[in-house]
Amino acid sequence: MQTTPSSINQHLPVPRSSTKTRSLLIPNNQKIAVKSEHHHPAKSNGAATATRRLAESLSGLLRVHIETPLRKELHQIDWSCLDHSDRTTPTSSPKEDISEKWCELHGLTDWDNLLDPLHPWLRREIIKYGEFSQATYDAFDFDSFSEYCGSCRYNPKRFFEKLGLGKNGYVMSKYIYAMSHIDMPRWLQRSNLVEETWSKDSNWMGFVAVSNGEESRRIGRRDIVVAWRGTVAPSEWYEDLQRKLEPIGDGDVRVEHGFLSIYTSKCDTTRYNKSSASEQVMKEVRRLVSFYRERGEEVSLTITGHSLGGALGLLNAYEAASSLPGLPISVISFGAPRVGNVAFREKLQQMGVKTLRVVVKQDVVPKMPGLMLNEGLERFDDFTGPLEWVYTHVGAELRLDVSSSPYLKRGLDLLGFHSQETYLHLVDGFLSSASTFRSDARRDIALVNKACGLLVDELRIPHCWYQLANKGLVLNSYGRWVKPKRDPEDIPSPSREAPSHQQVFGEVPTSNYEGTEGSTPFFQFSMDSISLYI
Amino acid sequence: MQTTPSSINQHLPVPRSSTKTRSLLIPNNQKIAVKSEHHHPAKSNGAATATRRLAESLSGLLRVHIETPLRKELHQIDWSCLDHSDRTTPTSSPKEDISEKWCELHGLTDWDNLLDPLHPWLRREIIKYGEFSQATYDAFDFDSFSEYCGSCRYNPKRFFEKLGLGKNGYVMSKYIYAMSHIDMPRWLQRSNLVEETWSKDSNWMGFVAVSNGEESRRIGRRDIVVAWRGTVAPSEWYEDLQRKLEPIGDGDVRVEHGFLSIYTSKCDTTRYNKSSASEQVMKEVRRLVSFYRERGEEVSLTITGHSLGGALGLLNAYEAASSLPGLPISVISFGAPRVGNVAFREKLQQMGVKTLRVVVKQDVVPKMPGLMLNEGLERFDDFTGPLEWVYTHVGAELRLDVSSSPYLKRGLDLLGFHSQETYLHLVDGFLSSASTFRSDARRDIALVNKACGLLVDELRIPHCWYQLANKGLVLNSYGRWVKPKRDPEDIPSPSREAPSHQQVFGEVPTSNYEGTEGSTPFFQFSMDSISLYI
Repeated sequence: MQTTPSSINQHLPVPRSSTKTRSLLIPNNQKIAVKSEHHHPAKSNGAATATRRLAESLSGLLRVHIETPLRKELHQIDWSCLDHSDRTTPTSSPKEDISEKWCELHGLTDWDNLLDPLHPWLRREIIKYGEFSQATYDAFDFDSFSEYCGSCRYNPKRFFEKLGLGKNGYVMSKYIYAMSHIDMPRWLQRSNLVEETWSKDSNWMGFVAVSNGEESRRIGRRDIVVAWRGTVAPSEWYEDLQRKLEPIGDGDVRVEHGFLSIYTSKCDTTRYNKSSASEQVMKEVRRLVSFYRERGEEVSLTITGHSLGGALGLLNAYEAASSLPGLPISVISFGAPRVGNVAFREKLQQMGVKTLRVVVKQDVVPKMPGLMLNEGLERFDDFTGPLEWVYTHVGAELRLDVSSSPYLKRGLDLLGFHSQETYLHLVDGFLSSASTFRSDARRDIALVNKACGLLVDELRIPHCWYQLANKGLVLNSYGRWVKPKRDPEDIPSPSREAPSHQQVFGEVPTSNYEGTEGSTPFFQFSMDSISLYI
Repeated sequence: MQTTPSSINQHLPVPRSSTKTRSLLIPNNQKIAVKSEHHHPAKSNGAATATRRLAESLSGLLRVHIETPLRKELHQIDWSCLDHSDRTTPTSSPKEDISEKWCELHGLTDWDNLLDPLHPWLRREIIKYGEFSQATYDAFDFDSFSEYCGSCRYNPKRFFEKLGLGKNGYVMSKYIYAMSHIDMPRWLQRSNLVEETWSKDSNWMGFVAVSNGEESRRIGRRDIVVAWRGTVAPSEWYEDLQRKLEPIGDGDVRVEHGFLSIYTSKCDTTRYNKSSASEQVMKEVRRLVSFYRERGEEVSLTITGHSLGGALGLLNAYEAASSLPGLPISVISFGAPRVGNVAFREKLQQMGVKTLRVVVKQDVVPKMPGLMLNEGLERFDDFTGPLEWVYTHVGAELRLDVSSSPYLKRGLDLLGFHSQETYLHLVDGFLSSASTFRSDARRDIALVNKACGLLVDELRIPHCWYQLANKGLVLNSYGRWVKPKRDPEDIPSPSREAPSHQQVFGEVPTSNYEGTEGSTPFFQFSMDSISLYI
């Protein structure tokens, strides 16, 4: 399933597209220097800025070859065979009782014989987790003029309801916050406001949730899900990647230092990161595992994330596997970059962490860090393994192809190729690597264009349509356009007590997590240049 | 009030701004060649695309000198003295009975002694008309994926109510549609849809409205207003300006051929332009003037428009003055380019058309066409007048300065400087050329950022915030994101009968305008290269 050098070097004609493919193989021992553009301030709105930055940034990155899909003649498509009228209810694959097969679907046998062709039960599960990952974007407050910039717009109690994910059958348990001691201006969102912001340092970075009774019965175990938020415009952090592997105190194991910083940074003077994301998530997972195991239930941990979120998820899985032996742990990542070296991969395998990497062939992010450098070297693991700077991918791969979908444009659109919603659309339509797009795919096509413009114009779905009316301004009773105050329950606050879901749902135990409480960090952070505990 | 060469050549330092001013005087006899970028298709959403195109296009235009305002230290501003809390009701200047002074306020004496200092009654009137002009943007359907792209989003009956302009005291009488036989890809909005669009050729271009009884009593006469829509991104049509003056069958009088084409084009095979914009508006104005004169009322015509809309308004005023002698006609334009030559100006003056040009000093559009070429020559009218290619401005000028407002940023922002809402904000705050910003200005500041980002960040108003939730997509009862059908009454249709306002308002006569009926065109269109009546 790995990308082979031959496919990388394949030059596909791109008729009717103005974008030229460029091919420049970088010598194996040469570092990729990408011009840094950190210092120009973000001036305009999120999606447009992101698109522009992507274009700017990738003008540098495109010195390596980017594959673009073959263009088909759109008018040859028989639209009538695809039933996506306004009058059908969107669904993913059938919601079957999978309790007998959950271990295989969770990766026990490395998804052997389940990926190609893709088992419909697995397809449903992948989309379920992908929707959790997508929700971390949809609920995120990107408004740099908001005092709540970088927080979640909704209260945990209403999160799934607000995002239309009640149907997935999970109950919110905990929000996760992260910060970073490394100056990565694009990785974390910052409010423009100097004062009055909810937090100067932290970002809402995801959540921990638990399957409810009904869903647990259907899937055969109590499933704890951790969803990690990624970044919207991957180009922004390509430039920040120092391509520097840091040891994590476990032999030769090394991981990318930027990801590690977000996962492990904390600071006593902050409100939301007196403990690190690592400590927050692990404390909650441990608590939930204990609670349900004491009730005699079978428990699993499924970690998901897109892009940066996938990278954080892998660090999270590594830590969870080390600290909770015997717990079935799998990671379902979407468009995630590489995280660590060969020793990291081997240790994950050894601890039994199962990783399913969903990868769109045309997406450049899974080629990061290292781009083609590593692609060419992966076949020589034995030889290059000891080299610290060689990143490697882990686990099984579900490989998708933009050109498989008749709904997607054929031109080069790196933002579109990387979008989480594009991934979910392609999973929904994937039957096998030898088949055409699934004709009875029922997921709402319009979702693809939430934050990109990849859908063919014939569908008439506006580009980047996911937006608030008047960017959240409302006309108040005096006739003035103002930014409304959030409902008190939606204002982020570092609670000493988690929301009392027990009262609401009767199934999830109350968290007694206290933000100020420390615990021994799992990862030994070993960077000399920065001070972790300032 | 004309721009003098000395102020044009003044070089102001722009500290803290990364944008450099460039000064390059173009020799008088040298044409300005602006690189055309017509052929790249518009891919992303309106405002962002507009901003990008502006930047691209102006990289060429900036070979001439652009003035940027002096930067003040923002922290020196005493915000507390400016009362713009959420708890005040936005108002313009006091709504006084101006019936005794209406002729002067309408320009009878060329606004002598009313502009500097600005008379508060006149300020209110200018803002009233400017809000009509702004409404033509706010109601316009820019969605190129909509089958109604290029139309007005609202039914005429509900137009003022939907846009919160009921307070202005006018009743909608007629919508105006325009087309052009010249290929000007950016002047008129086109749907991407090949079929099913409401009109392949026409754009909604403005409206005719009439003051109601209460407002007529306050302002001392029955006022017919014509509001012309402009273009959002002026850069788009700079490139289309051929700088070609066309005779309009009236001696030496010549006007820019692109504006004239939009004003006069028609085609029998279209739905909305069997008659031209000129014919539509003049028929309605003549009808209303007759109706109210027969009732013994005093009647005025006030024509308004921003940018391209101001140019069309001047052509409209020219035609109205020729065909309705004795009718008091004035034009209040905002950021309008030049339209015709010296003979055009002289003829307008001779016919008694009064023109108040509201101009923001930093806005480049009023310098179009011709840019500095004409600025330097205007003092030599006697010498250059006969030259066909010399465009000239007409009438009185109310000159505004971005740097007068403590709410506005100081950096170069050509889109912001040109925005109609910026104009209204500066009118609201203008006392005199010698005074600081009016401290009791009460118009809602947030409106400035509707379609730009000119407000200082301290105000926390998002950039370009005027937008629909999810770009108009709604979640239907099946759980699918769809573009809702318009209410039948909001679907544009070329009516044989105008909406029966008489029944609704009891004051405005029913129009018996029929789209198919022709009338002798006032302007003799004399271009050889195109066929007007195809």
